[in-house]
Amino acid sequence: MEKVSDFILPEEEQEQEGETLNRLMGERDGAAEDPAAGDDAVVIPDAQDSTHQTGKVGDVLVIGIAGGTGSGKSTLTQRIVRRFGEEITVIHHDDYYKAHNNMTYEERSKLNYDHPNAFDTDLLVEDLRKLKAGQPIQSPIYDYTIHNRSQNWKMVYPTSVIIVEGILIFADQRLVDMMDIKIFVDTDADIRIIRRIKRDVQERARTLDSVINQYLTTVKPMHEQFVEPSKKNADIIVPTGGKNSVAMEMIVNRVEKHLEKRQKAGRAPAVFQNPEQ
Amino acid sequence: MEKVSDFILPEEEQEQEGETLNRLMGERDGAAEDPAAGDDAVVIPDAQDSTHQTGKVGDVLVIGIAGGTGSGKSTLTQRIVRRFGEEITVIHHDDYYKAHNNMTYEERSKLNYDHPNAFDTDLLVEDLRKLKAGQPIQSPIYDYTIHNRSQNWKMVYPTSVIIVEGILIFADQRLVDMMDIKIFVDTDADIRIIRRIKRDVQERARTLDSVINQYLTTVKPMHEQFVEPSKKNADIIVPTGGKNSVAMEMIVNRVEKHLEKRQKAGRAPAVFQNPEQ
Repeated sequence: MEKVSDFILPEEEQEQEGETLNRLMGERDGAAEDPAAGDDAVVIPDAQDSTHQTGKVGDVLVIGIAGGTGSGKSTLTQRIVRRFGEEITVIHHDDYYKAHNNMTYEERSKLNYDHPNAFDTDLLVEDLRKLKAGQPIQSPIYDYTIHNRSQNWKMVYPTSVIIVEGILIFADQRLVDMMDIKIFVDTDADIRIIRRIKRDVQERARTLDSVINQYLTTVKPMHEQFVEPSKKNADIIVPTGGKNSVAMEMIVNRVEKHLEKRQKAGRAPAVFQNPEQ
Repeated sequence: MEKVSDFILPEEEQEQEGETLNRLMGERDGAAEDPAAGDDAVVIPDAQDSTHQTGKVGDVLVIGIAGGTGSGKSTLTQRIVRRFGEEITVIHHDDYYKAHNNMTYEERSKLNYDHPNAFDTDLLVEDLRKLKAGQPIQSPIYDYTIHNRSQNWKMVYPTSVIIVEGILIFADQRLVDMMDIKIFVDTDADIRIIRRIKRDVQERARTLDSVINQYLTTVKPMHEQFVEPSKKNADIIVPTGGKNSVAMEMIVNRVEKHLEKRQKAGRAPAVFQNPEQ
């Protein structure tokens, strides 16, 4: 595991957004090939020139929901799930934190949990591929009380809509390539740290100093180095998170349309038969 | 009309986003009242606590599409209109540029067209109210070739979906309050100036120097002072504009659902009978 200090870069090095300029102009937006893409120009856009393509009728719809700590992405995910129930499967990147069985609790508690290397993303990629192919998986479970992977696993059954949720899911190109809709929940850093302090101090009985120290040494530098640049992969950005009812309604309508098309196409309803039930 | 130099502020004064903190924490997001709004907390959000409320069944759906010059908002608007045709009415804030009949062409060409005061927003507010109430309006037409309002007006008939488009529509609270869905098309400033240069130099035969000069003296400072802060009013942010097919599909599905609900509620189809036809 890298040292935390390795990740604290001078400010100009943290700013990586400019590097994606060529990709933006070329592949994704097509602006470089389209001199008429100005605001007032009458252009006939070709839907095929974008890499933002939605899933085909009858396909599994994979929705990624990313955003920094305290952004409200979990609240948004929960609201969507409550609306559709068993028609939606949710996978949390957090459940794929690497196991560290050979470390003491003390050692594990000092790890940097905000770096991409903290996650077993290879396993998540494999599991998501299986779910998309209609196969059930056994997802790991992470136990925060021991800072380690639990001994238990949970069965996850494939559905026609899958949500993948986590701070760093847009930082892995393989995950990005498997997602049909990439939603980044974007909330100001001051609001996010306020929420984190409230949660950790008031609900988890941690000291204010320890919360602020962790925030400044790992959460913030990792956010700036990995989470913020990964926003460039988002298809839509939802400000202020889970209580944005207008954005919520748009996402819900998009999912409803997917389920309707799937039904019309004669596919089986979304819920996978659990052979154990 | 204010002098351009009045608007070029020191950088720290241009940054106004922090001022909306209280609004963000209090009214809009409810985070201040909800200590459980952290990422991992299991919260039961109340849809009623958000000011982002979508229109009721059968209501007129007003969609605002804002964004800086060259952001791709016009392309996005055109794609939506092409999808729904006469079921959607579009109003452009640009058509509501103030008339300056007592000025010479030379004087008019030197005005700052990127400041909120350049627009007759009172008239737009009044017209949008009428359209929402089911009344037709006579919209002004702006003639760019003479930098003035045209002598002609155009009849605009009410429909059940209305799009309001412009760089500064989220900078006026009255307009914001009338919109059900506020979409901000967010594109990097470098991409936007490239598009503007291409459009104005290649299509409108303007010199590179004049385009850059106008950009630096009015477009950029006005963007930073008014357009960028108004993004705070957006419900969703669409990166890279009109060719983002995933965002487009979500907006389209939202409009489709509105039209379906309206039809089910027994309302007349969207198109207003033009008495002149």
